[in-house]
Amino acid sequence: MSSAEEIAKASKSAFEASQLIDPTERVKALQIIHDALAAKKDEIFEANRKDVEAAKALVDAGKLSVSLVKRLDLTSGDKFDSMLAGIMDVASLPDPTGQITYASELDEGLELYRMTCPIGSLLVIFESRPEVVVNITALAVKSGNSAILKGGKESLLTADVLSKCIREALSKTSLHPDYIQTVQTREEITSLLDQDKYIDLVIPRGSNALVRSIQSASKIPVMGHADGICSVYVDETADLEKAKRIVVESKTDYPSACNAAEILILHQAVLDTVWPALATSLIEADVHLRCDEKTLGILSTLQYAHDRQTTHIHAADPQKDFDTEHLSNIISVTSVPSLSSAIQFINGHSSHHTDVIVTESELAASTFVRGVDSAGTFWNASSRFADGFRYGFGTEVGISTGRVHARGPVGLEGLVIYKYVLRSKKPQGSIIGEFGTGPGKKKYKHQPIAASKLPF
Amino acid sequence: MSSAEEIAKASKSAFEASQLIDPTERVKALQIIHDALAAKKDEIFEANRKDVEAAKALVDAGKLSVSLVKRLDLTSGDKFDSMLAGIMDVASLPDPTGQITYASELDEGLELYRMTCPIGSLLVIFESRPEVVVNITALAVKSGNSAILKGGKESLLTADVLSKCIREALSKTSLHPDYIQTVQTREEITSLLDQDKYIDLVIPRGSNALVRSIQSASKIPVMGHADGICSVYVDETADLEKAKRIVVESKTDYPSACNAAEILILHQAVLDTVWPALATSLIEADVHLRCDEKTLGILSTLQYAHDRQTTHIHAADPQKDFDTEHLSNIISVTSVPSLSSAIQFINGHSSHHTDVIVTESELAASTFVRGVDSAGTFWNASSRFADGFRYGFGTEVGISTGRVHARGPVGLEGLVIYKYVLRSKKPQGSIIGEFGTGPGKKKYKHQPIAASKLPF
Repeated sequence: MSSAEEIAKASKSAFEASQLIDPTERVKALQIIHDALAAKKDEIFEANRKDVEAAKALVDAGKLSVSLVKRLDLTSGDKFDSMLAGIMDVASLPDPTGQITYASELDEGLELYRMTCPIGSLLVIFESRPEVVVNITALAVKSGNSAILKGGKESLLTADVLSKCIREALSKTSLHPDYIQTVQTREEITSLLDQDKYIDLVIPRGSNALVRSIQSASKIPVMGHADGICSVYVDETADLEKAKRIVVESKTDYPSACNAAEILILHQAVLDTVWPALATSLIEADVHLRCDEKTLGILSTLQYAHDRQTTHIHAADPQKDFDTEHLSNIISVTSVPSLSSAIQFINGHSSHHTDVIVTESELAASTFVRGVDSAGTFWNASSRFADGFRYGFGTEVGISTGRVHARGPVGLEGLVIYKYVLRSKKPQGSIIGEFGTGPGKKKYKHQPIAASKLPF
Repeated sequence: MSSAEEIAKASKSAFEASQLIDPTERVKALQIIHDALAAKKDEIFEANRKDVEAAKALVDAGKLSVSLVKRLDLTSGDKFDSMLAGIMDVASLPDPTGQITYASELDEGLELYRMTCPIGSLLVIFESRPEVVVNITALAVKSGNSAILKGGKESLLTADVLSKCIREALSKTSLHPDYIQTVQTREEITSLLDQDKYIDLVIPRGSNALVRSIQSASKIPVMGHADGICSVYVDETADLEKAKRIVVESKTDYPSACNAAEILILHQAVLDTVWPALATSLIEADVHLRCDEKTLGILSTLQYAHDRQTTHIHAADPQKDFDTEHLSNIISVTSVPSLSSAIQFINGHSSHHTDVIVTESELAASTFVRGVDSAGTFWNASSRFADGFRYGFGTEVGISTGRVHARGPVGLEGLVIYKYVLRSKKPQGSIIGEFGTGPGKKKYKHQPIAASKLPF
C-alpha cells in the first residue's frame, strides 16, 4: 500500500501531466470509462451483492439503518444504467475550463487574459453510495481535476471493483491511471489531510460533524456543506393558497433533504387568517408542529375536526427547536411582528442554505432576498428548488453553505479556478519600467478585449 | 475590553444590518471617513511620531529593521495624502455587489438570478503599515463586508487614532460603528480564529509562516499568500534582447517583492548563445548568480572583463537554492533539455505565483502558459506585471497563491461571493411537484435571461 504522501504526490503529478492534454481527450476518456464499466456489470453486481449482504446482517444486528442498505444497493431498478448514463451526461456538458472570463489590453500589444482552469488535486469523501465513485470520477475528469476518492466502508467491495475498472480504463486514455485513485480507510484520510502540498481541495459529503472535523484537521481548503436549516416566512400579504402549496411541499416532499424547510415563520398579521388553514394543511400532510407560545395559542382556541389535532400540535422548545435540522416530518413554528424581525430571525437561526418568503408585496420580497444572508433566497417558490439539476447546472458536486469560492448548488463551475495569462507582442518584450509618470513613460490603457478563448 | 466572541458577533450584526442599505450609502460613508481623517491629520501625525520614535529606539537597540521604520512613518512625503486619495479611488470603482452573473428562466414566470453579494465579516491581519488600516477600511466598506483589523504592534498608537476616527465617522453614516473594528493583541487574534460562527474569511498579509499558522489554527477559510518563488524560463528560440530586459527587470526592479524572479531556467540550446550575455547583464545589474553545474561551467570557460565576475558567480546549493525566495539580488540558475522539462521543473519548484517564458515560438508559449500551474503565466513580459493595479483592478487586497475563490492579484471582486434569488410570478407560486416525467408534469426550460440587475 502506498503512503498518503505517495498517493497525494501521484495525484498531483497526474493532474500536472493532464494540463497539456486537449480537453477533448477528457471527453474521450469518459466514453472509455463508460464502456469499461458497462462491460464489467456482472462483476460489479457480484461485489455489490456481497456488500449488501454484509450490510443486511448488520441491519439485523441493529447496527445499521435499512435506508443505508437501500442506498448501497446498486443492482436495484435502473440505478446502474442511470449511473452509466450520468457519465455521458457530464461528458456532454460545456467544457468549464479554458474559458476567458476577463481580457484587457494593458498597452498596445500587451494583453491580459483570465482563463478558467482546474483547481488541481481533489480529495472527495462521501457516504456508502457506490455510484458516487462513478459520478465524482466523471466530474473530476470533465473539469480537469485529478481526484482521490473515499466512500463509506459499507461499500468497500463495490467501490474496489469500480475503481479497478476505472483505473484499467484510464490506462487506455491520455490520462495517467493515478488521475483517479481510491483509498479505503479512515486512517488514510487522516494522513491525506496533511498533504496540503499536493492536495488542493477537500470535498466532504456527509454530516455537519464530518465537515467540521475536517476543517479542524487540515490546512487544505474545504468545500463542504453544513446543516440545512431552511425557513419559510409567510408575510403579512401572503396568499393562503400559495402559502399552503409552498410550505407543505418545502416540508414534506423529502423531509430528510437538506433543502427541506425546518422552520415556519408567520407575520403576526396572518396568525388569525392564514395560520389556522395552513396548520390544517400541514397536519393533514402528517406534519408535526412545534409551535411557540403565540402560534400555539391561536391553534388551541380553534375547533379542529381533524383527528390528528392532539397528536400533531406540540409546544416548541425555544432553546432547541429553532436551531435543529429535524430531517423528518416536524416543523418549528414562530411568529414575528415585522418583515425586518423575520429577516433578523432567519439570519440568526438559519444555516444560510435556502430561505423562502411567501408574499404578494414586491417591496417585501425585494427586502427579503437582499436582507436574508443565505445561498438561496426565494420568493413564492418551494425551498426544494435549491438543487443543481433544477437550477440548470446539469449536475451537482454538492451544495455549499460556505461563503467563499462557491455557494449554493455547485456545478462543474465550482471545480474550476482561473489563471492570468499575459502576452506581449512587443518587439522588445514588455517590462513595467516603460510605464509610470516620469518623462517618456506610458500609461496603462486597460481596454477590455472581446475574447472567449486564448488566442494562441 | 470586549471578548473575541462579542467582537465577532458585533461584526456580523453590523454586516447583516448593512445588507438592507443601498450601496450608494457605502460610497457616502467613504466620503465621510475621508473627511474625518483629513480633519484629524495633526492628531494622527502626533501618534505616528510616537510610534516612529519608539521604533527607532528599537532599531538602535538592534531589535528592529530600518525598513520597518520607513514603512511605519505616515508623515513622510505624500503618504498621508495618497492614503486619503486612495479612499476616494476605491469609492469611485464600480460596485462589485448586486451584479447578476447568471440568470435563467426555469419555467415561464419562474426566474433564477445569481447575484454578487459581500462575503460577510472579514478578519484582516497585516504588517506595521498604518495606512493599511485605511486601505482595508475602504475596501471593506466598498465591497459591503464588515471587518476586524489587526496591524503590527509597532503601529499601535497610529492605528488606534485612525480607528477611533473611523469609528466616529461611521457613527455619522448608515453603517453601524462596529462595521470596522480594530484589535490590538495577538491573543485577541488567537481567540478570534475560533469564531467561525461569525467570521467568514481571514486575510493574513505577511509571511508564509503567518499564513500557514492561521490555516492550522482555524476552521475559517483563509485567503493568503505563500512565498513568491517566480521563475523566468528562457526558451530555445528566445530573443537575447527580450531575455535581458525581462530577466533583469524581473530580478532587480524590486527584489523583495513577491513577484520578483528567484529562478532563471535556460534551455540548453541557449547556454552558448544567450546565457553569457545575459549573465553579463545580470552581473552588471549587481545580481549574484547561483548557478548549477552546467550553467556555471559555461561561465567559467568565458573571459569576463567585468570586475564583479568573481564576486557575483557562485555554485548553487541544489538542496536549497531552487526552493528559496531570495528576496534580494540573488538568482538561482539552472538549465533544462526541453520545454516540457522546464514546465515540470517550474511546477515542482515554483510557489505557483507567476512564471514567465521568453520565446519567439507561439507553440512553446501556448504550451507553457497552459502547462505551468501558476496564478500568472506570462509570455515575453516581466514577472513584475503581476499586480492588481497593473492588471487594471484599481486596487488590490493582496495576491492569492491559493487555488480556490480567488487566485493571483485580488481586487474588489475577490471580496464578494453570490447568492441565488428565485422568483415565481405564477398565480399559485411554484413547487417542484409541477415538474417531472409523469403525466401533466412540466419540463424545466433553463432559458438564459439577459439581466444585469435584479428586476425587483
